[in-house]
Amino acid sequence: MAVYTEISEDQLCALLAEYDIGSPLSCKGIAEGVENSNYMLGTETGTYFLTLYERRVKREELPYFLGLMDHLAHKGLPCPTPIQGRDGQALREVAGRPCAIISFLNGVSPKRLTPKHCFEVGAATARLHLAGRDFAGQRPNALSIDGWLPLIQACGSRASDVRAGLEHELAREYDSLRATWPDLPGRVGDRPLPHGVIHADLFPDNVLFIGEALSGLIDFYFACNDYYAYDLAVLLNSWCFETDGAFNVTKSRALISGYESVRPLTDGEVHSLPLFARGSALRFLLTRLYDWLNQVPGALVKPKDPMEYWQKLNFHRLVLGASAYGVER
Amino acid sequence: MAVYTEISEDQLCALLAEYDIGSPLSCKGIAEGVENSNYMLGTETGTYFLTLYERRVKREELPYFLGLMDHLAHKGLPCPTPIQGRDGQALREVAGRPCAIISFLNGVSPKRLTPKHCFEVGAATARLHLAGRDFAGQRPNALSIDGWLPLIQACGSRASDVRAGLEHELAREYDSLRATWPDLPGRVGDRPLPHGVIHADLFPDNVLFIGEALSGLIDFYFACNDYYAYDLAVLLNSWCFETDGAFNVTKSRALISGYESVRPLTDGEVHSLPLFARGSALRFLLTRLYDWLNQVPGALVKPKDPMEYWQKLNFHRLVLGASAYGVER
Repeated sequence: MAVYTEISEDQLCALLAEYDIGSPLSCKGIAEGVENSNYMLGTETGTYFLTLYERRVKREELPYFLGLMDHLAHKGLPCPTPIQGRDGQALREVAGRPCAIISFLNGVSPKRLTPKHCFEVGAATARLHLAGRDFAGQRPNALSIDGWLPLIQACGSRASDVRAGLEHELAREYDSLRATWPDLPGRVGDRPLPHGVIHADLFPDNVLFIGEALSGLIDFYFACNDYYAYDLAVLLNSWCFETDGAFNVTKSRALISGYESVRPLTDGEVHSLPLFARGSALRFLLTRLYDWLNQVPGALVKPKDPMEYWQKLNFHRLVLGASAYGVER
Repeated sequence: MAVYTEISEDQLCALLAEYDIGSPLSCKGIAEGVENSNYMLGTETGTYFLTLYERRVKREELPYFLGLMDHLAHKGLPCPTPIQGRDGQALREVAGRPCAIISFLNGVSPKRLTPKHCFEVGAATARLHLAGRDFAGQRPNALSIDGWLPLIQACGSRASDVRAGLEHELAREYDSLRATWPDLPGRVGDRPLPHGVIHADLFPDNVLFIGEALSGLIDFYFACNDYYAYDLAVLLNSWCFETDGAFNVTKSRALISGYESVRPLTDGEVHSLPLFARGSALRFLLTRLYDWLNQVPGALVKPKDPMEYWQKLNFHRLVLGASAYGVER
């Protein structure tokens, strides 16, 4: 929930003069997205999304994100398309910030998740993985295992202010994952573990539905190259737990069925799910914990409770195999 | 900047089933408005504004506000029209809150104000005053002089934490205004002072322009019955000071000319401007001071600096007559 940078009407008119999408009719700051300033922009030709990239997004990475959205949208994936200015460039500047105008997608993020939602998001994720296969860009996952130790160190002993003993637990969990994590390009036994472009943050907030039909995948600013099964593990964490912490196997089975209806998982991917579910739970635990410990007084964004992901991590620690997620191999 | 209440897609569908405006296609929380939760709502028939009324707006006053908007819109004023459900009611409930769907107006709030903007808002305010003459509803101005003493008392000695001696200054200013303030229905000499429906909060944030043409007046949730010249004084305070605190007479002259191009001021109204400018400066000083002293930790809204209005109040205290605002009589 955030608008950090305000735009004057002069700045807006000057920006739109670089495009062929008509002059501005309305521009409303949107209370969503925690990394950037987002506006719904109405022009004579329709509705668009204007994003101003704030400090947390690295300017040099924007061509990867915008290029990927463009690539995926042209492959028919329901994701935003960056709009190019008259000079063919989508990445521009306004109010001293890098910015892009992207197409607006209809739909509403689901609040009460059903197995049908889960099936749909599973299928769309597989389509994203397939559509990304011939995308030329490369971006390592900065928030995979190599990014966790710096976060653990940055939280330091203050982690244990949030929960007694947490600092030690995090270090122990990291060591345990480090010992078994497959570095890219990874193998399980003698078989390669499939990898490519992943979304890496496909929470319900970032998926739009009209009724129970999926209408959009948004917010590609964590997209990167990593294991497909890791993306699926992010989904298991963000779509299949109930608010009381219970894991809903009906939902995870629907999610994996949806995925496999488009792209069947290899045996190695199925076997890697418990590991990747632990890893991705630790990833969200760590970023939330860091934000929790580094709240800015007066900030517009309320940090999310890191302990939700501590609970999820502990669920995955006790899992004996992928059958806990409703998939056998 | 605020969305306080979230709506699920089920709640949204159930709400829209009570209307004839089609099913929902999108619903984005808007980062504007400090009193309510606002959503831009896209349906099969167009774009609307969905407002959920939060604690600060009294439910029993909503029929006045919605009835007034309906009245003014039907008189041709560019203001939002409440959309009626199938049963003819515009005031409904969603997510445990009173709510209304209103028409969406194009336009952008001006950031860099020009005399042309000021002329336009002056003229539109006069049109609002004329259009409101046959509106039957009545609502006293809760934030006129009778509302100031309770605010001064609620701030108490903490006012002087913001500025040394402020508590005493506020009491002195209140006493001075109280001694000369015309209670409704007021007279100047033996002539009545015109009064009727006023907007009472027509800051640039609440006015929309496309280019330099005024396209909308919004946010009627402080509208009430009071002196027309008081509304004009609110405009002098919110449109005619530069950010460095200087009063721009070119702008105030344009604003009053715009007003008088539609509805000429009486001599009594012109003479009352310095008093009403002081009074309305005190009104915004007091509400901002109260919000400043009563910040909620973690709130999404940053309170505005009350001292901006302390400066403005002091400008008006030194004014010898309405000629300071560029109007003679």
